[in-house]
Amino acid sequence: MEKLIDLRSDTVTLPTQEMREAMYRAEVGDDVYGEDPTVKKLEEMAAEITGKEAAMFVTSGTQGNQVSIMTHTHPGDEIILEEKSHIFTYEVGGIGYLAGVQARTLPGKKGVMDPSEIEAAIREDDIHFPKTSLICVENTHNRAGGTVIPLDVLKRTYEIAQNHGIPVHMDGARIFNAATYLGVPVKEIAKYADSVMFCLSKGLCAPVGSIVAGSKEFIKRARKFRKMLGGGLRQAGILAAAGIVALEKMAGRLKEDHENARLLAEGLNAIPGIFIDMETVQTNIVICDISGLKINASEFAKRLFKKGIKINGGSGYLVRFVTHYGIEKDDILRTIKAVKEVAEEK
Amino acid sequence: MEKLIDLRSDTVTLPTQEMREAMYRAEVGDDVYGEDPTVKKLEEMAAEITGKEAAMFVTSGTQGNQVSIMTHTHPGDEIILEEKSHIFTYEVGGIGYLAGVQARTLPGKKGVMDPSEIEAAIREDDIHFPKTSLICVENTHNRAGGTVIPLDVLKRTYEIAQNHGIPVHMDGARIFNAATYLGVPVKEIAKYADSVMFCLSKGLCAPVGSIVAGSKEFIKRARKFRKMLGGGLRQAGILAAAGIVALEKMAGRLKEDHENARLLAEGLNAIPGIFIDMETVQTNIVICDISGLKINASEFAKRLFKKGIKINGGSGYLVRFVTHYGIEKDDILRTIKAVKEVAEEK
Amino acid sequence: MEKLIDLRSDTVTLPTQEMREAMYRAEVGDDVYGEDPTVKKLEEMAAEITGKEAAMFVTSGTQGNQVSIMTHTHPGDEIILEEKSHIFTYEVGGIGYLAGVQARTLPGKKGVMDPSEIEAAIREDDIHFPKTSLICVENTHNRAGGTVIPLDVLKRTYEIAQNHGIPVHMDGARIFNAATYLGVPVKEIAKYADSVMFCLSKGLCAPVGSIVAGSKEFIKRARKFRKMLGGGLRQAGILAAAGIVALEKMAGRLKEDHENARLLAEGLNAIPGIFIDMETVQTNIVICDISGLKINASEFAKRLFKKGIKINGGSGYLVRFVTHYGIEKDDILRTIKAVKEVAEEK
Amino acid sequence: MEKLIDLRSDTVTLPTQEMREAMYRAEVGDDVYGEDPTVKKLEEMAAEITGKEAAMFVTSGTQGNQVSIMTHTHPGDEIILEEKSHIFTYEVGGIGYLAGVQARTLPGKKGVMDPSEIEAAIREDDIHFPKTSLICVENTHNRAGGTVIPLDVLKRTYEIAQNHGIPVHMDGARIFNAATYLGVPVKEIAKYADSVMFCLSKGLCAPVGSIVAGSKEFIKRARKFRKMLGGGLRQAGILAAAGIVALEKMAGRLKEDHENARLLAEGLNAIPGIFIDMETVQTNIVICDISGLKINASEFAKRLFKKGIKINGGSGYLVRFVTHYGIEKDDILRTIKAVKEVAEEK
Repeated sequence: MEKLIDLRSDTVTLPTQEMREAMYRAEVGDDVYGEDPTVKKLEEMAAEITGKEAAMFVTSGTQGNQVSIMTHTHPGDEIILEEKSHIFTYEVGGIGYLAGVQARTLPGKKGVMDPSEIEAAIREDDIHFPKTSLICVENTHNRAGGTVIPLDVLKRTYEIAQNHGIPVHMDGARIFNAATYLGVPVKEIAKYADSVMFCLSKGLCAPVGSIVAGSKEFIKRARKFRKMLGGGLRQAGILAAAGIVALEKMAGRLKEDHENARLLAEGLNAIPGIFIDMETVQTNIVICDISGLKINASEFAKRLFKKGIKINGGSGYLVRFVTHYGIEKDDILRTIKAVKEVAEEK
Repeated sequence: MEKLIDLRSDTVTLPTQEMREAMYRAEVGDDVYGEDPTVKKLEEMAAEITGKEAAMFVTSGTQGNQVSIMTHTHPGDEIILEEKSHIFTYEVGGIGYLAGVQARTLPGKKGVMDPSEIEAAIREDDIHFPKTSLICVENTHNRAGGTVIPLDVLKRTYEIAQNHGIPVHMDGARIFNAATYLGVPVKEIAKYADSVMFCLSKGLCAPVGSIVAGSKEFIKRARKFRKMLGGGLRQAGILAAAGIVALEKMAGRLKEDHENARLLAEGLNAIPGIFIDMETVQTNIVICDISGLKINASEFAKRLFKKGIKINGGSGYLVRFVTHYGIEKDDILRTIKAVKEVAEEK
Repeated sequence: MEKLIDLRSDTVTLPTQEMREAMYRAEVGDDVYGEDPTVKKLEEMAAEITGKEAAMFVTSGTQGNQVSIMTHTHPGDEIILEEKSHIFTYEVGGIGYLAGVQARTLPGKKGVMDPSEIEAAIREDDIHFPKTSLICVENTHNRAGGTVIPLDVLKRTYEIAQNHGIPVHMDGARIFNAATYLGVPVKEIAKYADSVMFCLSKGLCAPVGSIVAGSKEFIKRARKFRKMLGGGLRQAGILAAAGIVALEKMAGRLKEDHENARLLAEGLNAIPGIFIDMETVQTNIVICDISGLKINASEFAKRLFKKGIKINGGSGYLVRFVTHYGIEKDDILRTIKAVKEVAEEK
Repeated sequence: MEKLIDLRSDTVTLPTQEMREAMYRAEVGDDVYGEDPTVKKLEEMAAEITGKEAAMFVTSGTQGNQVSIMTHTHPGDEIILEEKSHIFTYEVGGIGYLAGVQARTLPGKKGVMDPSEIEAAIREDDIHFPKTSLICVENTHNRAGGTVIPLDVLKRTYEIAQNHGIPVHMDGARIFNAATYLGVPVKEIAKYADSVMFCLSKGLCAPVGSIVAGSKEFIKRARKFRKMLGGGLRQAGILAAAGIVALEKMAGRLKEDHENARLLAEGLNAIPGIFIDMETVQTNIVICDISGLKINASEFAKRLFKKGIKINGGSGYLVRFVTHYGIEKDDILRTIKAVKEVAEEK
């Protein structure tokens, strides 16, 4: 039987053999007591990589983002974020429920908010107004197609924030993809944010876990919110061990995923009825507009599945392909061929 | 000395002589025990006027809106509302702090959201998504210049909401202005919403108070949230007495305010450097773009104040004039003349 | 027909003739703009009386307490308060919903918490623990029977709080009754709290309104929370006018209510089957244990009502009588007689 | 060097060799997509063991308790729980921050609340009152010394709850210890609760993870709150694999821990200056009052540590010993000897 090619997300990546071995051998302790040496090591590595004073292991990107927002803000505040951002779209309304803040959403261009629009959205001091207390950026931006925020835009955003005394949080779930695209170390990106979250799962293949990095004082306060959400784990070193392998071995190979995404995008974009904004194909995500095929995403996904390729459906006409560890060039070629057939069937 | 013409807002209206007399004579009781006959009478009148089963006196429009949202939703839900709406702009971030809901803001055209955009913004059922549990409309729309939602748009919005099982709340702070503009009874507008809030202060001149109207079951639950917010009053009949006069005597005269606003808008729009979108001048609010004068709103307000006219300033180039009870045709003419002088001074 | 004697609560008091006249003549303005001279005057008087830098008019005691707690704390904190306190019992669970804080309730003796128990309940710094960020006291204590906190206990409580850097909020809904009992000015009590709330309604007879007093900085932040809850009123001077009369004319006469309560308590306690802890009869509240009568509070209230006397019922065996303006010595004698008859009927 | 005997908590247990092998070999998938077979298997086992329709893996006991409370209640409600319960004491004030509910704490006897006091604490329907919407019990009760709720008390508590239409949540972090003590299957205990949380870590030795079990509908809603808190994991099967071993192999050996605790308690209680309420020594926790030694818990812990024994200190005079996997009879004897020496040193 042919291999099933799963392009739904890089979250489906399985732990590597080396990760399994690292978990098997991991030295662990009770991390609520601060005694898990493997967690400590991972947190130190993560702080180093992001250029921050401290870092903290969390169980998911959502937990990392939500805890960061809870730590930066007070209920009744307003936060500025991109209208298609993961935090706004996919985190179950947590910013209202947990942090009690109001979302001031701005429409980005390819996921990137205009710094002057951000500045205009900052509230003046007035008894009617909530206080603007946080700016969130997403890098790479998932729903925009894995796009990267240009460093100068990020810099300007951060300067504006600092001028207004407002912190910046970066949802850098895929910050390693951004760094790979820009050809800079992660810390060159993270330096334009007060806190940054990135995922060890997704492209880096760890089974579970993300990181929040920031100042020592920020991380200290964030640990208490993590505990409240149930993210204070016991022998978390098991998971951290895989995270260390993720950082040491997997970050360097993301350019393969990007090449595969590029190859896929070029192949798909050549198919009549499919449109891809090639400028957005920067990392490991390809978003196609299939409205020219006159079938919706659900139907498209169903037909591809019959050909051994898995993507997410939906009632609209946009479909997303995500490349990741385990997806080879051959898989890409098979996928292009399969899509071509589906396009011709219609 | 010349009379000071205060065009900042219709909230500055003072109680009429008749209201003062009604308050003086008001029969009152302890409304927390449900024993204030004047409050009861006002609530019955308000229910009748809005065509709803029940109504409740609240101390302000903000309290009415927030209690309604708290009653319709659960924390973690998402609500759809216009991006310049009063609820989002001027209610101190209450929807996040109090109701714990996430704001999905849509840009309206002259304050009116496109029903198909509303429909597109309703969330599907997915573990990542908050539930869309309320649609809020504002009628008339303050920041858009007192614009009225056309009845057919309102109807379509309500039908979409009902198809999805989602309630509609109307911030009708100035619903009597909308009714006056449309030439229909208030209940012809309110019927396209499950709950409606309107103000007895503002154009209707009562010193304090607003109304929330809806189903009996809704109002019953809302009373508990009102109590929690501290809106359970004792001898509130004092205020309700003025509210009854507002409904009986003041609603009918709003067309004068509209005529004055029209007169003002035409006069101002003829002044070089001032631009008014005349289509938005439907009720008692006039919003002018003064960027052509090369002075900002604060400076403009300061200069007008020297000529005995009061408006709100700000750092931008939009200024708002609001007509109301106590502003006569002569005041309008004096205002136009004063603005002309300011425009020529520059 | 005989006069109905309403002893349910001092909240049923009606505005006096002088209050009605003051409201009729009140000079008012838009208080959201800070332009209502009568509100300003009342707030200055209230600050003076409580010995605080600033004061703020709120629409109810619940609003005053809740806004104070919101201003002093952060969500996730813990507050210490008496287990039968009004805030815990009668404010609709607001401290959880609004402030998001956890209630650490201590059982008081006659409503008074032991300072050393308070100190023992203050949390140490630990990642598992919420931070103790507020101590609330109630003076006089409603459910304990209008009891007054002795000044030395209050002082010790405040010292402990200060040693731990924790503010004290006083629910002084009936602080004028406490001051009357102690024979000291209100500020001699209020000085042992960082913020104090008292009611203009209740014994002081104003139709609507309470006061929060504290430091300038505290009141400034509290005003924003008041606005969020819908307590930012427009021409609130109408209500403030009655509040000024309350402070000037009504505070001085509370000793009459206390004498009447004493007379009532002595009379009732002499009736077989009724027990009153006479030590708690300090101000204007009398709590009777009627279990000796073998009828519950509801039945007791029903029978008294037939004799022209109104009190609140309930499923238990405690009933409360509250004396207030409008209740004369003759009413007390009639009440004792009526209770005697009910007691003998059984 | 002598082995360090860690009696601080059963949370310090390390994964067994069999668990490490199971994790190494675990078949995993993306559990957010519901595709992790090992998680599914664990959840099915847990549902079966607790006798509930469905179960859900969570990352900690705190997460399990908090998600359960969020799912059962609405903000503004009141919940009844024991005043020394883990939820109230050690979960960072989460019930206020997250669920927005008010805690009505009752003092238990050896951790067990009197059912009639629970019934008396349930609120009537009144506009001033929050709604009582949940009763939480803790079984075994940690701070009371690992005490077990007698089945008949549990039954009566559940009946009262059902009569009032209020659900019961059981914090059964150590429910396997309770079942071992009572000699009944876990489901015989869990049947007196609508939802139950238990831990795979602690005595069962899994490195990370707990379970929430309840009705299908309850678990479905709870999954959304778990996602919001960041508990939606990807390849969680790694952790679940250890959880399966915990259920299959570790639950049966808890009686050894209980025997060791008994032995320890008897030994310590015989030492002058130490007092243990032997009735509370039912499972694997021993709480000693060391006030007779005239040294506080911190000093006591420091001295024991020098003898190779680790317990938690604190400013009071109560110390806790917890037995668990890895603690043998010899360790207990060494501990008794060491405590004796410390007691004699003073």
